[in-house]
Amino acid sequence: MSGPSPQPPAIVLVRPQLGENIGKAARAMLNFGLVDMRLVAPRDGWPNPDAGPAASGADVVLANARVFDTVQEAIADCHYVYATTVRKRGLTKPVVMPEMAAGEMRARPERSALLFGPERSGLETDDVALAQAILTVPVNPDFGSLNLAQAVILAAYEWSKQAGQPEMVIDNYEGPASQASIDGLVGQVDDALEAAGYYHVPARVASSKRTLRNLLTRPGWSEKEVRTLRGIVHALVEGRRGVRPRG
Amino acid sequence: MSGPSPQPPAIVLVRPQLGENIGKAARAMLNFGLVDMRLVAPRDGWPNPDAGPAASGADVVLANARVFDTVQEAIADCHYVYATTVRKRGLTKPVVMPEMAAGEMRARPERSALLFGPERSGLETDDVALAQAILTVPVNPDFGSLNLAQAVILAAYEWSKQAGQPEMVIDNYEGPASQASIDGLVGQVDDALEAAGYYHVPARVASSKRTLRNLLTRPGWSEKEVRTLRGIVHALVEGRRGVRPRG
Repeated sequence: MSGPSPQPPAIVLVRPQLGENIGKAARAMLNFGLVDMRLVAPRDGWPNPDAGPAASGADVVLANARVFDTVQEAIADCHYVYATTVRKRGLTKPVVMPEMAAGEMRARPERSALLFGPERSGLETDDVALAQAILTVPVNPDFGSLNLAQAVILAAYEWSKQAGQPEMVIDNYEGPASQASIDGLVGQVDDALEAAGYYHVPARVASSKRTLRNLLTRPGWSEKEVRTLRGIVHALVEGRRGVRPRG
Repeated sequence: MSGPSPQPPAIVLVRPQLGENIGKAARAMLNFGLVDMRLVAPRDGWPNPDAGPAASGADVVLANARVFDTVQEAIADCHYVYATTVRKRGLTKPVVMPEMAAGEMRARPERSALLFGPERSGLETDDVALAQAILTVPVNPDFGSLNLAQAVILAAYEWSKQAGQPEMVIDNYEGPASQASIDGLVGQVDDALEAAGYYHVPARVASSKRTLRNLLTRPGWSEKEVRTLRGIVHALVEGRRGVRPRG
């Protein structure tokens, strides 16, 4: 049961009411790579014809969902269980947010489970008592109206997020241009501004030139982008000649 | 426009199709304390009788939603704009994940906006070109099927989660210019390029204009810097007249 890398958590829907919500939960799971769905005593039986359309293609999750009579049976192979709830319980248990729960689950080699209660009422206190910890999403205290699929997606998202993707990349970006290319662009604009009489206040020439360089350096344009900009400046400057009256 | 604490981002739904999804997005927003909803050309008009029931009590968000004809108008007062998309674009832009976007928005005193595209098709490339950055949720590459409300809730959740964290500062930076100011600069350069005959290959006009906008949007220049650049462009353009031979 244990291994070198963390196992994705099981998502356990306890007494879910609507097939549509089971389908939406499946979709939310698969969006973030979770596939182990377990259903405890679904109200309308299983399979449920309303689940498939709501899953929007996450059929593999529904096809492999397992059905259990009790929560205990559903989590028998799980080593750490979180009960998701927004309401306070009379139980003394750790209460963790999704990010921390995801970190804990990733730190363990054994399988974990997340329990989600019925749509209308949420988990009963007896269900919560089966869990080692409570998972709570920090919603707006004046409007705590998370539906089942939303609660599932936030937990699944946090699990997935910690897989190590970078938080930022630049799409289609070949890296910043060389200093020589930036110098070329700055020089081109500078020459054109000289010719246009832009630097007409002698006391401000140095600071104007510094500002110009800074404005054109900070963006970090690529070589290709610098070439495009040089073309644009060329067009603006050549435009002068283009509109010059003949004769 | 600026103040000591970050302003919650505007959630901009661009050409949303179903009232039900607008309602669900409102619910997702209010769950994490966001209330500034903006609708650009909703397909079925506004108000929409299907929105209220789907909002599950988040009526205050719908009641205060504002409607605009264009994305530009909707984000005119926003200083930093993220376009949410899962598809690759031909644009060179930073691509950030929700956590980083939330951190960036919290680091700025000015209002930010998050653009969400129509349910079926997502944002068009011209919409994306209006943004300084792309916000992408790192979904399962084999099943990237986030619906509108799910995308909204993940962004809103990350924003809310970072409440109370210490703010970053950016040295000597007064913050990015408003979208309206960037529009002014882009329009000025565009007009000058038209006059200079830069757009002489009809098949490339649209992509050239998009590239121009992207090049001038991405740097995140301040209001003062945009004014300086407008002066520079003005000098280049007026220069034509200055060097025109007399007589």
